Amino acid sequence: MKKPLFEKLAIVGVGLLGGSIGLKARGDNLVEHVIGIGRREESLQKAQDAGAIDEFTLDLKSGVKDADLVILATPVCHIVSILPDVMGSAKPGALVTDVGSTKVSIVNAAETVATGNGALFVGSHPMAGSEKSGVEFSRPDLFEGTTCFLTPTPRTSLQAFASISQWWRALGCRLAVARPERHDALVALISHLPHLVAVALVRAVESFKEDQNLIKGIIGNGFRDTTRIAEASAEMWQDICADNSAEIRKAAAAFMESLSSLLSAHDGDLSQLEAAFLAACEYRKSLDER
Amino acid sequence: MKKPLFEKLAIVGVGLLGGSIGLKARGDNLVEHVIGIGRREESLQKAQDAGAIDEFTLDLKSGVKDADLVILATPVCHIVSILPDVMGSAKPGALVTDVGSTKVSIVNAAETVATGNGALFVGSHPMAGSEKSGVEFSRPDLFEGTTCFLTPTPRTSLQAFASISQWWRALGCRLAVARPERHDALVALISHLPHLVAVALVRAVESFKEDQNLIKGIIGNGFRDTTRIAEASAEMWQDICADNSAEIRKAAAAFMESLSSLLSAHDGDLSQLEAAFLAACEYRKSLDER
Repeated sequence: MKKPLFEKLAIVGVGLLGGSIGLKARGDNLVEHVIGIGRREESLQKAQDAGAIDEFTLDLKSGVKDADLVILATPVCHIVSILPDVMGSAKPGALVTDVGSTKVSIVNAAETVATGNGALFVGSHPMAGSEKSGVEFSRPDLFEGTTCFLTPTPRTSLQAFASISQWWRALGCRLAVARPERHDALVALISHLPHLVAVALVRAVESFKEDQNLIKGIIGNGFRDTTRIAEASAEMWQDICADNSAEIRKAAAAFMESLSSLLSAHDGDLSQLEAAFLAACEYRKSLDER
Repeated sequence: MKKPLFEKLAIVGVGLLGGSIGLKARGDNLVEHVIGIGRREESLQKAQDAGAIDEFTLDLKSGVKDADLVILATPVCHIVSILPDVMGSAKPGALVTDVGSTKVSIVNAAETVATGNGALFVGSHPMAGSEKSGVEFSRPDLFEGTTCFLTPTPRTSLQAFASISQWWRALGCRLAVARPERHDALVALISHLPHLVAVALVRAVESFKEDQNLIKGIIGNGFRDTTRIAEASAEMWQDICADNSAEIRKAAAAFMESLSSLLSAHDGDLSQLEAAFLAACEYRKSLDER
């Protein structure tokens, strides 16, 4: 049997992502012990029953103090708010990372407080998850084949970076490395904007106040696919959007311009419209190729 | 064995939809004979080899003249342009319908010319299909469980309406009935707008000129789902958008307003943003319920 990568893992927030990390870590013997930390005993008990954690506590500081690896898996603004306590309570040499969907504010918060007893922070963003949330949807293979961003800065310890890289690879991730600012611009474009667009589409349909049974009967796979992500956690997305607002605006401006030019082409030169459709079709297909 | 519903079926345009109609009609003995009509011998031969049609011709008028049921399955503007020849060549009492994604211009065109030898037109829109096109993707169960719009007008023959209803039910469709104008407004909202939005999203990402391999590595299921329909046939969609432009603009205006209000909520009252996300989530979930 391979030696575990870490002795003790603390997961703060044992939902879909935290729970899946725990299941994989315990199932593959990546760590010797997993402690779950959260705000509600009931859901931590559920996580323990599901086999995602060995034990749990509601006390953040005592929960992280013996851990060799701490993973913060709560909504973005909560991560920012607990980082001072986490970095202040973790033991010297402990590694701290997170799964937040934005990175600038989290990495800044960590580096501002990372002067205490020497815990080392590296920002992560495993791009896994779905419109489901909650530990009951956790699965050990959630990360298999997904991409995990690592967002080191000039202040990041190389050794910590290497260990965290090894960790996510053990969970099945491919790695992408980018500065926090570049990460936030990229995800605004390929993740946050599509989410807002899906929500706006659903809201637009709702605003016409059509009979819901009629709408149910006539929506096809196109509408279903395009709007599926609008079912994702409102709390999580409220956080992401507020945190990455500036980058999302830039991406949304490009999108609005693109949509407006499609709409004006309707009444003008149709070959221009077809050219736009063909270009989108080709670009989209190229993204599917392996 | 049940008696076929019609003796001779003529399918004009044997692509994904036309081919699937042929496969189902022949496989279930809904008709005795199927003739395919098209512009390219090569693709008609492919349709015949696939078992979607019994024979084919490149000559529209001679192809439809003995048919008891004629189904027009070409792009919208082509349907409009061939309707005079079809209605003028079909035999007295023959039924003519179509699968076009817009209905006002097609039904108008049919009713303008339906004074000839007494062929009867009823507009149909089976909401089947996918981002794939071409007879090679045809399957007899393509229509199973999908909704088919029928768009009668005060001038529609009740008997023709009943026969066409029976036809689509035999293909596996649920029926929805609406006047052509109402149909076009509804599909602008739940089908055409989502398509344009998907195309605009893809174009927006492309406009940032990021390294394509990086983008490929980091796009997740959210982006993939939201933009899948952008891979659909450019020719077909160019046609639809041009034809239904006014209704699409109304739907797009509601969408843009909804997206703008989400973007302004980012920097303002976050509870408003969360409320919008929650409402979208609930409405979207309600559309999944059976």
